[in-house]
Amino acid sequence: MGKLVIVGTLAFDAIETPFGKTDKILGGAATYIGLSASQFNVDAAIVSIVGGDFPQEYLDLLSNKNIDISGVEIVKNGKTFFWSGKYHNDMNSRDTLATELNTLADFNPIVPEDYRDADIVMLGNLHPLVQLSVLNQMTVKPKLVILDTMNFWMDCALKDLHTVIKKIDVITINDEEARQLTGEYSLVVAARKIHSMGPKYVVIKKGEHGALLFNGDNVFFAPALPLEEVFDPTGAGDTFAGGFAGYIAKTGDTSFENMKNAIIHGSTLASFCVEKFGTERMQDLSNKEVHKRLLQFKQLTQFEIELA
Amino acid sequence: MGKLVIVGTLAFDAIETPFGKTDKILGGAATYIGLSASQFNVDAAIVSIVGGDFPQEYLDLLSNKNIDISGVEIVKNGKTFFWSGKYHNDMNSRDTLATELNTLADFNPIVPEDYRDADIVMLGNLHPLVQLSVLNQMTVKPKLVILDTMNFWMDCALKDLHTVIKKIDVITINDEEARQLTGEYSLVVAARKIHSMGPKYVVIKKGEHGALLFNGDNVFFAPALPLEEVFDPTGAGDTFAGGFAGYIAKTGDTSFENMKNAIIHGSTLASFCVEKFGTERMQDLSNKEVHKRLLQFKQLTQFEIELA
Repeated sequence: MGKLVIVGTLAFDAIETPFGKTDKILGGAATYIGLSASQFNVDAAIVSIVGGDFPQEYLDLLSNKNIDISGVEIVKNGKTFFWSGKYHNDMNSRDTLATELNTLADFNPIVPEDYRDADIVMLGNLHPLVQLSVLNQMTVKPKLVILDTMNFWMDCALKDLHTVIKKIDVITINDEEARQLTGEYSLVVAARKIHSMGPKYVVIKKGEHGALLFNGDNVFFAPALPLEEVFDPTGAGDTFAGGFAGYIAKTGDTSFENMKNAIIHGSTLASFCVEKFGTERMQDLSNKEVHKRLLQFKQLTQFEIELA
Repeated sequence: MGKLVIVGTLAFDAIETPFGKTDKILGGAATYIGLSASQFNVDAAIVSIVGGDFPQEYLDLLSNKNIDISGVEIVKNGKTFFWSGKYHNDMNSRDTLATELNTLADFNPIVPEDYRDADIVMLGNLHPLVQLSVLNQMTVKPKLVILDTMNFWMDCALKDLHTVIKKIDVITINDEEARQLTGEYSLVVAARKIHSMGPKYVVIKKGEHGALLFNGDNVFFAPALPLEEVFDPTGAGDTFAGGFAGYIAKTGDTSFENMKNAIIHGSTLASFCVEKFGTERMQDLSNKEVHKRLLQFKQLTQFEIELA
């Protein structure tokens, strides 16, 4: 059982979808990653920052999932990062209505002593220099460093992004962002270009169209589970990444074959995330429900063609 | 080894893609379906119509693949159906530049006597009443009737489309068309509604995003093989359907489990079709190439998670 460090946002989200809208609820990349990874009972810690307005019950929720929160800085007089967005009818695109960085603007992450030798580091979407600072605090080279990022940093911190990308093992990025980062439309060609930037493993997330894992000439694909209704896509990508990281941390196996399983676990967990608003579905997810859905994934994708 | 009847167009296509453009080349749904199904050495016949301008070499090409063309009517003084289209840069959307029905306008398909007891009937995209007329000529109820259609018939012959849909076993339809036919955005819900219209099996084609097979609560998904370059998507959907129909005809097994394999074979063959203009890649495709790509499909999709 490996140790897992997660750096990312703890946030308030206000979400509007065709199905309804929420006031400020619990959100943030580290929240979704942590809740997802906690399914594997790994020794995980979140490194993040919040304001004095962040409810103790949200912190308790994470603690109760056995997530170490000693690396969460609480700025008593500050306000927590806030994001607000509205999804279009197709649920694949959204408008950002508000982004208030608040305490996040001065985030200087401190990895707790106990986690500076973590096996797996999951760098959630943040400024590339913040991600880099976490890596620099590790006293033992991690077995696997996973980085998530987004187009925003390509637009305004591309050089820093390249600096951190050079130092990581796995990048998770969505299809449009992979195209933006490389200038290539073909995801096969884009993945090859990203390999040449550093990461040996490239995960391209395609939302409802699944995810691809590239490692040189090896390619693996996992669909998203076809659902009757996607209620709120917020956090699906982070939940996917958290499942991936959590499974790798649990198994301690960073082979390509095992990463396939990690991708399947990530997709499975993400399929729950979107069924309710925010983190609601992830908070009380049972092993039995996950097991049942893993079986559905097998039925969805596995076939028997005998090939000599 | 079952008999397979294919009804559909033999056509001239003029295609423009970001990679180049063609003059009039061999096209048409029945052409792609036939070439694809011929990979399985089944006893297949094409029922179609062409004008006197249709080159003998195109007919020979089909005959040389052991496809019976006695059901192809040649209207000496008529012209062959012509379609011209231009693909956008993303290769997922296209504009139709010209559609000249010509002899197709008066197509009255006649199924050759020898094929009126065929096991498998593949109704390529045509006016629903033309598709229905083929079904009515069958003297023995086929083991499986597969129908392909498109949004055009939903716009202008919806009632006739419903009449034929009621009588078939498998419908292949793309995602946008499934949504148009049912008024449902969720493909899971759309598939259920299409089930209630008649077909026990619903195949929803998502282009580069793969294909879904629904049979009640059973769902199977096959991705499209990630390619470095999609050169020309024309005929990919028909090649997919031809591979599906050909594999079912060869195996004679219409179980859901075997349909999964048929979907994989269809996806595999479609992945070749798009690599060159028109039918070029499909004309000389070797068993060895197909076998190699089936292995790639396994590596792309198969994983080992032990579930109790």
